[in-house]
Amino acid sequence: MRAVAAAGSWMRAEIAEQPAVLERIVSRWEQTVAVVAEALPEPLAGVAFVARGSSDNAALLGRYAVELYTGIPALLTAPSLVTRYQADLHYRDHLVVGVSQSGQTPEIVTATVALRGPGSRTLAVTNNADSPLAAACDGRLLLGAGPERAVPASKTVTASMLAVLAVATAVARACGRPDPIDVRALSALPEAVAGIVDDRSPAQDVAARWVGRDRLQVVGRGLELGAVLEVALKVKETAAVFAQGISAADLLHGPLTSLDPQVPVLLADCGEPEFADLVALADRLQSAGVDVVTADTSPAAGLSLPSALPVPLRTLPLVVRGQQLAYEWAMLAGRDPDAPPGLSKVTATT
Amino acid sequence: MRAVAAAGSWMRAEIAEQPAVLERIVSRWEQTVAVVAEALPEPLAGVAFVARGSSDNAALLGRYAVELYTGIPALLTAPSLVTRYQADLHYRDHLVVGVSQSGQTPEIVTATVALRGPGSRTLAVTNNADSPLAAACDGRLLLGAGPERAVPASKTVTASMLAVLAVATAVARACGRPDPIDVRALSALPEAVAGIVDDRSPAQDVAARWVGRDRLQVVGRGLELGAVLEVALKVKETAAVFAQGISAADLLHGPLTSLDPQVPVLLADCGEPEFADLVALADRLQSAGVDVVTADTSPAAGLSLPSALPVPLRTLPLVVRGQQLAYEWAMLAGRDPDAPPGLSKVTATT
Repeated sequence: MRAVAAAGSWMRAEIAEQPAVLERIVSRWEQTVAVVAEALPEPLAGVAFVARGSSDNAALLGRYAVELYTGIPALLTAPSLVTRYQADLHYRDHLVVGVSQSGQTPEIVTATVALRGPGSRTLAVTNNADSPLAAACDGRLLLGAGPERAVPASKTVTASMLAVLAVATAVARACGRPDPIDVRALSALPEAVAGIVDDRSPAQDVAARWVGRDRLQVVGRGLELGAVLEVALKVKETAAVFAQGISAADLLHGPLTSLDPQVPVLLADCGEPEFADLVALADRLQSAGVDVVTADTSPAAGLSLPSALPVPLRTLPLVVRGQQLAYEWAMLAGRDPDAPPGLSKVTATT
Repeated sequence: MRAVAAAGSWMRAEIAEQPAVLERIVSRWEQTVAVVAEALPEPLAGVAFVARGSSDNAALLGRYAVELYTGIPALLTAPSLVTRYQADLHYRDHLVVGVSQSGQTPEIVTATVALRGPGSRTLAVTNNADSPLAAACDGRLLLGAGPERAVPASKTVTASMLAVLAVATAVARACGRPDPIDVRALSALPEAVAGIVDDRSPAQDVAARWVGRDRLQVVGRGLELGAVLEVALKVKETAAVFAQGISAADLLHGPLTSLDPQVPVLLADCGEPEFADLVALADRLQSAGVDVVTADTSPAAGLSLPSALPVPLRTLPLVVRGQQLAYEWAMLAGRDPDAPPGLSKVTATT
């Protein structure tokens, strides 16, 4: 699980490590779910995620999954309410989940602890067992992804996505609902991701098609929204392209007009069957001259996704496709994907 | 209150109407708060906003204000959980607030009704008393902004922002907390906005400086985040510039690296005193050669905001500054601000 930089790139090596990282979580799935179950308050009124950046995108998958599979309100908190305004917030009977690969971002630790109200409990989702976040929480869900050296996070993101699906699973069981993720589907995940990792040419092709463009719109909806935001963020921070992720519904509510043939669109659809609204959107964009690449399970997809996985798990290969695109785009643009200028691995926002 | 298109533009006329629209809400403040109070469930576990586009940005101010001033969890819901996945969600003991200027977006009506769980009640915030949303909800907070003809919403947005502050006020009172908004400050709002409306040259100057740029990053934090997203959306849909709103903290967590001298930054800070983190960010951006314009209360601000207003109310003039910038930028770029291609006034997302 220790990264070896291939071709001088930690990011490429860490993208390739993901099947092994995910396999480890899958093989310990019941223990992982049990860690969450032990941290659950009783009664449970809601689940509140505290995160920033890529971890926030993983948390967004968790938010959708918790609500969809358990019916319990779930939200992404606004850390600044605590850190900037010293708001007196106490989420009663909530599971407060701090997600941070480093476990060291001060505002995440501060907000996670401060939001714990009467009857509530805290859970750390982190790759760093010795971090302040892990120390501060009632429960610890460790990603076990090994050291991540490239500044753009890759393996810790998909590991966090799987971790928040474990949160949804534990909550579903506590509510007497069926498991959101079938065990057989889960065990197919690492191999499916390995298939994506070994299949670099689609991302190379798309990167070659788009290199030189300075904008990118990444569009999706529902369960894949967190993945869509993560793909945009990865391209933005790695390839320095002004990429933006957006819900297909919000796109129709205004920003559609700003798209022109100079702004390519990556349209992601993890749905099964494909959702008619996204197919209609692709047609509408293409007839307006927009260069659209789709990420879905169809043979015609520019970035294909494995149809063997159910939708929530399929968002992980989508994120891997985005990592590949970001990496290849950066390489073609002559940028070092491991160390984008101006960024550091631990972001000390307060 | 009936719009008269000046210089052929409904949008310009509707921007200018805002002092009168806001004055009307201010003059009926107690009745407005009473409408919300009557719709509040007892007990009240949380407030859930259901919205899209500009209304979602107004709702984001409401979400921050409810949490900050009442301590009660507030969230923006994900309508697709209901409309796309038919999730069985019931928010127990919640006030579910549907925000839609037209009151006609099908998914907003569907989701608002579906989210109403045991002990919960629904409130419509809309400019259309005869709309399906108004008909479907337990309470109706009508904006009374008069017909809005330009596709980019302006007066209904600031009216919605004030309406969600009335929601926060009613919730605060129900919780025995002080009123978030001082009555004297509230009564100063219409005149302050009139001062902005009459002061068009700053937006003209910034538009002249940036016309030809194809990207814009709008940055802020905390209570102003909803306004920041709205300014970006307005510039995007009106001037067809690929604008993106982002939290200052999230910017530091990755996207900072994608900024270059070709991507101007509008840095909004409604804080008093200015928050050190945003001042430091401005310095960092400027020393990297980024063209930064600030929107704040200082005399040096490119887009000045009225210091006489407290921070939550100051977000409304910030949105008006953004409307002016979007309008002037569109005019300089030779675009019709009233009818951006591809958009209609009622967005029928489902």
